[in-house]
Amino acid sequence: MSMTEEQITELRDGYRAGLMNDVIPFWMRHGIDHEYGGFLTSLNEDGQVIDTDKSVWFQGRGAWMFATLYTTVERRPDWLEISRRTIAFIREHCRDSAGKLYFTVTREGRPLRMRRYVYSEAFAAIACAAYAKAAGDGRAAEESVQYFSTYLRHSFEPGVMPPKSVPETRPSKGVAPLMIALVTAQEIRATLGDVMVNGARCSEWINRSIAEIERDFYKPELGALLEVVGLKGEVIDHFDGRTLNPGHALECAWFILHEARLRANDPRLLKLGLGILDAMWERGWDHEHGGILYFTDFKGLPIQEYWHDMKFWWPHNEAIIATLLAWKLTGAAVYAERHRLVHEWAHRHFPDPRHGEWFGYLHRDGSVASRLKGNHWKGPFHLPRMQWYCWKLL
Amino acid sequence: MSMTEEQITELRDGYRAGLMNDVIPFWMRHGIDHEYGGFLTSLNEDGQVIDTDKSVWFQGRGAWMFATLYTTVERRPDWLEISRRTIAFIREHCRDSAGKLYFTVTREGRPLRMRRYVYSEAFAAIACAAYAKAAGDGRAAEESVQYFSTYLRHSFEPGVMPPKSVPETRPSKGVAPLMIALVTAQEIRATLGDVMVNGARCSEWINRSIAEIERDFYKPELGALLEVVGLKGEVIDHFDGRTLNPGHALECAWFILHEARLRANDPRLLKLGLGILDAMWERGWDHEHGGILYFTDFKGLPIQEYWHDMKFWWPHNEAIIATLLAWKLTGAAVYAERHRLVHEWAHRHFPDPRHGEWFGYLHRDGSVASRLKGNHWKGPFHLPRMQWYCWKLL
Repeated sequence: MSMTEEQITELRDGYRAGLMNDVIPFWMRHGIDHEYGGFLTSLNEDGQVIDTDKSVWFQGRGAWMFATLYTTVERRPDWLEISRRTIAFIREHCRDSAGKLYFTVTREGRPLRMRRYVYSEAFAAIACAAYAKAAGDGRAAEESVQYFSTYLRHSFEPGVMPPKSVPETRPSKGVAPLMIALVTAQEIRATLGDVMVNGARCSEWINRSIAEIERDFYKPELGALLEVVGLKGEVIDHFDGRTLNPGHALECAWFILHEARLRANDPRLLKLGLGILDAMWERGWDHEHGGILYFTDFKGLPIQEYWHDMKFWWPHNEAIIATLLAWKLTGAAVYAERHRLVHEWAHRHFPDPRHGEWFGYLHRDGSVASRLKGNHWKGPFHLPRMQWYCWKLL
Repeated sequence: MSMTEEQITELRDGYRAGLMNDVIPFWMRHGIDHEYGGFLTSLNEDGQVIDTDKSVWFQGRGAWMFATLYTTVERRPDWLEISRRTIAFIREHCRDSAGKLYFTVTREGRPLRMRRYVYSEAFAAIACAAYAKAAGDGRAAEESVQYFSTYLRHSFEPGVMPPKSVPETRPSKGVAPLMIALVTAQEIRATLGDVMVNGARCSEWINRSIAEIERDFYKPELGALLEVVGLKGEVIDHFDGRTLNPGHALECAWFILHEARLRANDPRLLKLGLGILDAMWERGWDHEHGGILYFTDFKGLPIQEYWHDMKFWWPHNEAIIATLLAWKLTGAAVYAERHRLVHEWAHRHFPDPRHGEWFGYLHRDGSVASRLKGNHWKGPFHLPRMQWYCWKLL
């Protein structure tokens, strides 16, 4: 046993208290648009709204979080109402005439930006699924399946999404669409059951996603999960192909470990998830300053993104989940130790003792680089999801 | 007199030596593709090529630099040949079937990425103009005008360039296309004469660009040159509209001061250029660590780009030119002092004493964040242009 009962209790209580007494109250106090519905996530350190534009990603992510708290923590009507009004905002203001979701809209819901890809749809899918379960709302359940169907079609059917590059010269694919397919299918299955989407059950989409990640992106011989590869998993020896994202890979590891757990510690999935975790911990942990580096190069060459050595909040959230889940599944001391390392580094550097919640962006040495509490990429998702998941896990 | 003759001589010799003994030899040794023509700019600290993909921006920028050295420094055949082979590479490999230039191609010249905007064209235009003058090549002169014509049409004729956002909700425009129109017209006029492009002479494009920058982007009452405004110059109080780019604005200032100098110290242009310089020096100079901050917010709020406080090489190159030119035109001690500050900070932190040239990306405190010498945005342009311009100015 590599954690005492006392340590486990202390950790569990800490995650619960962070979620219930700090992070959720912060977003309820500052991040809810009581006039138009939905979330305002661009907040200064004290919660002041510094940009009223709305991220469609965060409408879905926030609605998912609050509906999930309603079904798994406490049936608080205000949580359900926040989720309900956000789902309505997405439905009424975030869809273009073809039904595809925007990337950003104004506070009132006028369209600002459409992007090629479909992550807005994936987050709307989990929001609607969680809300459907919380409220017993059949329309939301149908919308969840529709959004996920759009996501799958655009992400995986050749020709549906317009290409970013000239695809013939160097065909490539990323791990991100598979990871999001995997976690979205997990969420829908957990709330709506193992439903059919685009001709396959959620479990089948999970199996396919994990199989392709394992076959084409995970390179145990290189000690890395790659982000971008050729169509058959070939290593692309250019900046994009060499750039590793350890926090993203650790997130992938815990999605797979979560699936292993649901399947009675399935040994193949366990081995895969732990393999990715072990490799990418080594790739990402900063032995000089502590914390998880944002990008590293798998050959150790310089990285094109100049801010590669910054410490972001969300890779630490994912690393905290991945190491705790690995410890829970294996009992191995190495995972308890890694969890202690990343938990302590994160809690020493990210939280704002004055106004609450976490800062999002630190320099490599742990000093605060930006004092904002939210923007189009930081809102009520990674941090409260981590606190909720770890609390419930323990 | 705020600089002694001895100081001026020392500065001038330093810029010349940096250009001729360090930076140009570094790029000739490591950055020339002797097999396919053109420039390879993704280099490690020691000059090793770490990505063979080619930036089309840098084919134009590099060809311009070497043709300009040929006409203004020394008629070295190898410089002319580098420029000639790069122009040929652009002509043969960087154009799509409609004649628009790609953003990146492979080393051999197969297309990788097309972007909506047209900076590849602007840099190809100055390359062809400088080469046309260097080699007396009429075809290159025609191509220069064609590229600039495409640039102007896509940048300023409504409907030619596909919009990035939903333009109806919040119509906006950026200062960058006007700055590049201004400097491209200046280069073409300097090499090919005051030719007609799209119905107006280069001087007229210069006048129009400066007038619009002054009318819509420069806000003396706010002490700032804005990067993005509404179509009539309205301040957009969102992240994008508040974000200042001091190095970019200082570059704009010296383009205008350069024009003032060519027009016998035209007082209106002088006042405008110095006004932008004064305002944006205050906005950008880091009083805590020295150096020019990459982004600042004109209301002092947090900035969306998390790497806002990094120190990049090119804003320092632009600040060095702007302050030296302002001093040359006015003799005012304040500009000599600012030039000394930014010259000394830059030369203390950016140069690599071991392998030569400059690092490009430093943390706020001046420590090196990336050891690469070049990528798709750093190559033989900002640094040697600064050394060449300051040498010739003194």
